[in-house]
Amino acid sequence: MTAHTSRLTGQVRVVGAGLLGASIGLGLKARGVDVILDDASPANLRLAIDYGAGRLSRADDAPTLVVVCVPPDLTARVVAAELKAHPAAVVTDVASVKVGPLSEVERTAESQTTGGVDVGRYVGSHPLAGRERGGAISARADLFIGRPWVVCTRPELSRSRTQVVESLILDLGAVPVELNTVAHDAAVALVSHAPQLVATLMAKRLMGSSDAALGLAGQGLRDVTRIASSDPELWVQILGANAPAVAEILRGVRDDLDTVLGALDDPEASGARRALAEELAAGNAGVARLPGKHGQDRRFAQVVVMVEDAPGELGRLFTEMGEIGVNLEDLRLEHSPGAAIGLAEIAVLPEAQQRTIDELSARGWRIAGS
Amino acid sequence: MTAHTSRLTGQVRVVGAGLLGASIGLGLKARGVDVILDDASPANLRLAIDYGAGRLSRADDAPTLVVVCVPPDLTARVVAAELKAHPAAVVTDVASVKVGPLSEVERTAESQTTGGVDVGRYVGSHPLAGRERGGAISARADLFIGRPWVVCTRPELSRSRTQVVESLILDLGAVPVELNTVAHDAAVALVSHAPQLVATLMAKRLMGSSDAALGLAGQGLRDVTRIASSDPELWVQILGANAPAVAEILRGVRDDLDTVLGALDDPEASGARRALAEELAAGNAGVARLPGKHGQDRRFAQVVVMVEDAPGELGRLFTEMGEIGVNLEDLRLEHSPGAAIGLAEIAVLPEAQQRTIDELSARGWRIAGS
Repeated sequence: MTAHTSRLTGQVRVVGAGLLGASIGLGLKARGVDVILDDASPANLRLAIDYGAGRLSRADDAPTLVVVCVPPDLTARVVAAELKAHPAAVVTDVASVKVGPLSEVERTAESQTTGGVDVGRYVGSHPLAGRERGGAISARADLFIGRPWVVCTRPELSRSRTQVVESLILDLGAVPVELNTVAHDAAVALVSHAPQLVATLMAKRLMGSSDAALGLAGQGLRDVTRIASSDPELWVQILGANAPAVAEILRGVRDDLDTVLGALDDPEASGARRALAEELAAGNAGVARLPGKHGQDRRFAQVVVMVEDAPGELGRLFTEMGEIGVNLEDLRLEHSPGAAIGLAEIAVLPEAQQRTIDELSARGWRIAGS
Repeated sequence: MTAHTSRLTGQVRVVGAGLLGASIGLGLKARGVDVILDDASPANLRLAIDYGAGRLSRADDAPTLVVVCVPPDLTARVVAAELKAHPAAVVTDVASVKVGPLSEVERTAESQTTGGVDVGRYVGSHPLAGRERGGAISARADLFIGRPWVVCTRPELSRSRTQVVESLILDLGAVPVELNTVAHDAAVALVSHAPQLVATLMAKRLMGSSDAALGLAGQGLRDVTRIASSDPELWVQILGANAPAVAEILRGVRDDLDTVLGALDDPEASGARRALAEELAAGNAGVARLPGKHGQDRRFAQVVVMVEDAPGELGRLFTEMGEIGVNLEDLRLEHSPGAAIGLAEIAVLPEAQQRTIDELSARGWRIAGS
């Protein structure tokens, strides 16, 4: 048995036993919470229960929190139904869009002649977490650890209800971020939905090209297009639900693209190169605003080691790094297809850089640039 | 002294002592080649010579190969001058665009009243290699190892002259790829120049946003926008020189973007969701065409290990992987800014997956999904 170490009190009902729902169930069960699972598909539900993500509901259940983890298109309807079915519970959801579902929940509540639904019990939320693969089969209790999880604030929401959802978030190891619904939808349009479409449209261009051309691709193209492999069905729902916010950003992209196309159509014209330079400089400024470590952390010095593309070579490098006693702060691997050699770009503390180079060289490693 | 192990015979003259020129010099010198360096800037030249990338020219030099490594805007002019100055040499260049420079070289040759220049001695080439930082100070002999390096074929080129350039490429450890100039420029427009602008335009959108919104950014946005930090000055030259090919691809992007915007402006309209789904599916198909290992290699199984964001933790993980005797085939690190924990996604041979999970778990590592 697991000790009860949850910030939550009472039963938690999770509706929708896919990747997110089952991961929430696993995470809460690990903290000793009584998790009730439900899913429109009996097969999905049984699978998630087999994985230990929760139990079947019983007639006398009285959840204090309901977490709706159904596809975006169904979210509002299920939230409204849960508000009605569990009149004492706070209801949250994990959909990646928040404005539309909230007004749909409000409309549904108003239209109910029995008038028994208090929309003030609905606190929308959105964990910025996921995996390439979906379903309970990919679920993990640690899916949310360290990830931001937005709680959508509204003036009429009571602090105690918001806190129930924040307890859920903290229980799962995530970082609560309070935003109102409009700010949330604008933010995810910018950091997630518009980039998805930009990557998609660039990747689509690769369809008509020759293998020879694609053989010249480097890490840049791979990075720009990586997320274009995401699930179309899910993304149609997300984009449809956040269409105005995504369209606003993409209209900005389209206007700038027209500027770029104008400059490319006559690159010798007066002002054409300046227009290109200004777009490129604005891109520099934009990417520099991104927080975080990867690729722009100046606290560390870099050592680039050449690694044969043979089994065990990378492991041997890290073993020897350990033997030397140098801490590996970050790492990036680069190799081109078919190449017999790759580059391991290792970040170390600046004071350890020279020693790392010397010791690895002494052990026969080829260090780039030295 | 270094043994002479080059495929090249005679002196090689490198014009332009920046990152590429100095790296070529270093690589050839390591094979015992006599490298003559030149640069319009005496300070650059002196620096590259100090780094060991070559020597000053002498009056009796008679290079058999000249490699022009000057900025794209100057390439054709310098190639023409070198063809004239060294009537026995094959002349190549490393500019990332090939159609424009070739016709400029041809025009220059025709206009020369002395008529002494044989454009058949010019064999354009393009190494797909580089670094974020430029200059001789960033040069390295191994910059080209394993990278594709295009040799631009033309019907009138003699095989022996093309082979001189391929010898250079092989000497530097790169992989020669033969393409005609038009195919080359279309290929780099697709795999490099258009993605650069797509990343730039997406990154520019980040300028007006709030810190709260940017705090929600994940690896997807980081990947899409990473190359937007490239040098505007260099890119204006590249884009200007390959404008028609880049514009053709970006016009395709713009047309698709208009389709997407039409769907987003009225997502409930008949056909809107289908239009979005088709774009997303086309993106899936495009990215699936990219060759190479990273992120899509099915030969390996994955183990996801949770790593505290503390000094030495990553090194300890790799040391223990070495102790266990499991070969690390590939690795990807993910952590969100400010998070106390990161994920190391380790690729291992499928038969080693369970043992890796068991042994790492036994040593106290938290394995995601297990």
